[in-house]
Amino acid sequence: MRQAFWDGKRVLVTGGCSFIGSHLVEYLIEAGATVRVVDDLSSGKLSNLDDAPAGWEFVHADLRDPQVAASAMDGIEIVFHLAAVHGGRGFIDLHQTACSSNFVLDGVVSQAAMGAGVDNFVYASSGCVYPVELQGDVTEEVRLTEPQVGPPYEADGLYGWAKLMMELRLAAMHAEAGFPSVSCRLFTVYGERCPESHALTAMVGRAFLRQAPFEIWGDGTQVRNWTYVTDIVRGLALAAEHVRDGSAINLGTEEGIQVHEAAQLILDITGLDSRIKPLPDMPTGPYNRVASAAMARERLGWVPEMPFHTGLKRLANWYFETRSKDSMSSAEFADKLITR
Amino acid sequence: MRQAFWDGKRVLVTGGCSFIGSHLVEYLIEAGATVRVVDDLSSGKLSNLDDAPAGWEFVHADLRDPQVAASAMDGIEIVFHLAAVHGGRGFIDLHQTACSSNFVLDGVVSQAAMGAGVDNFVYASSGCVYPVELQGDVTEEVRLTEPQVGPPYEADGLYGWAKLMMELRLAAMHAEAGFPSVSCRLFTVYGERCPESHALTAMVGRAFLRQAPFEIWGDGTQVRNWTYVTDIVRGLALAAEHVRDGSAINLGTEEGIQVHEAAQLILDITGLDSRIKPLPDMPTGPYNRVASAAMARERLGWVPEMPFHTGLKRLANWYFETRSKDSMSSAEFADKLITR
Repeated sequence: MRQAFWDGKRVLVTGGCSFIGSHLVEYLIEAGATVRVVDDLSSGKLSNLDDAPAGWEFVHADLRDPQVAASAMDGIEIVFHLAAVHGGRGFIDLHQTACSSNFVLDGVVSQAAMGAGVDNFVYASSGCVYPVELQGDVTEEVRLTEPQVGPPYEADGLYGWAKLMMELRLAAMHAEAGFPSVSCRLFTVYGERCPESHALTAMVGRAFLRQAPFEIWGDGTQVRNWTYVTDIVRGLALAAEHVRDGSAINLGTEEGIQVHEAAQLILDITGLDSRIKPLPDMPTGPYNRVASAAMARERLGWVPEMPFHTGLKRLANWYFETRSKDSMSSAEFADKLITR
Repeated sequence: MRQAFWDGKRVLVTGGCSFIGSHLVEYLIEAGATVRVVDDLSSGKLSNLDDAPAGWEFVHADLRDPQVAASAMDGIEIVFHLAAVHGGRGFIDLHQTACSSNFVLDGVVSQAAMGAGVDNFVYASSGCVYPVELQGDVTEEVRLTEPQVGPPYEADGLYGWAKLMMELRLAAMHAEAGFPSVSCRLFTVYGERCPESHALTAMVGRAFLRQAPFEIWGDGTQVRNWTYVTDIVRGLALAAEHVRDGSAINLGTEEGIQVHEAAQLILDITGLDSRIKPLPDMPTGPYNRVASAAMARERLGWVPEMPFHTGLKRLANWYFETRSKDSMSSAEFADKLITR
């Protein structure tokens, strides 16, 4: 449905072929925007935009090139900067050098946006900017609030550090030059098109394979506030509309779920009767990560709408439908899922 | 004097036209190396290399361009990466956006060096990576030791954060891919060619102007371990020779001097009888910053040799000699010095 704010807006979505990016592109086009997607397809896929309505153009290019970044801004009013070297927990723990590339990418893109004088710059930050030490105890009711990211800092690996440094940079750009921006700290996002490098899709994939025993990473007690992608996308759009002062705002539900609970739900939804087998030596990240959504409620009027159980069903339905059509052999596929 | 390690070595010095860079280039050429200097002359000056012996080439280019960075590495065995957006205290406090550009520069240069497979990569880091809260009390005997930079982190502004992130990145590049490097945390460096944006040269400049009363920034009690540039340069070379494991090592004397002491010495050396007038509202940075040199002694055999009093005389002699020949009018010059 067209929305007054977005109707006719010229918008850039970096990383628009990604899981989250492609949902954002669809949302913005439906709201009336014309969208330019710039993506190097290092992890995004053009097929993620197969169902996007008309009203977008695609540039296949690497935004770390300052000329690419400058061209990408041409005629753009609002930037959503989602492009990043990223991956699931295994990737961000074990490929810190690769994640460091985001220092360059974020610097070049923000510089280009400032040069172009855009009306707002929405940065996809992450729950990974929060101090790891606040997220260790699963018996606590954790609600990470925005001011808990403050000196001294302790981000989650170089992936988290790059997100945090970009937040600080954007705040400085606002303070020194009035550059408009908002950083949205995304908490564990899931939904259709979420790749298997992320826990829920990985577990759905194992259910598709009828895995028995059914493997989960860690001891299973770790808590995440999985937040459904259309809620996230709506939050990003609201942030663009309402905040331009360089603030950082959480986008995440307050519904904390343990990994073993999510696993059991997936077994139930997919009708699989397997014993759950924890793999305690696999990377898990912090054990208890749940956002406070208070600031997003107050400043954006954002309330996440998707119940976890329903979102998980949608993810599983999408996955089973897509994978059934896939040409990949079960063996290749099992290999990919289990050793990743 | 030629040195076996350096004789015939092909070396890149980024930012080689700067104050410190130019001394390093001279040192390396005298040790037998052939040197490529890449500098965008944003703050460096070619005239800093006026007295360098033959054996160097100069490329005027911006290393944030990945192609420039890749070309710069061609045929290079050892990289000294000194290029940075930098300045004195006023600059790094008030131009954090500009300093953020170092995230890009450092990322592009380190990526290019890894691509080229250099034998060692020496990074000019900074005392600004140390937690500011350890440096507040002038009544304490501060000796900042390398492990005091550890989670949680608190660097000194985005200048310090960029230095710290590059250290973490280099450590990750070593851990994940064996990339050889050493980060040298330089503490307040002074000597010939140090620009007036830095406190000692600024004070020498005011003495040249016969300023009365004689202005100093802050209340004058702040402590620095000013370290003479030829000591620093020798330390950088020793680091290149001895450390390749991604460690970070302080290069700074353990001789803490208060600003009012330094000011009085400058008045004595230059024969000026002025009353010292503190300007407590001007930026000062942390009040007590002195390095421990223990790790540099142990791992590099580095001991700083220049007594502060002697180094300060050399700085003043150079300054008075150079400035006497300068065409700038006293009024222009006074304006530059006092309002900087």
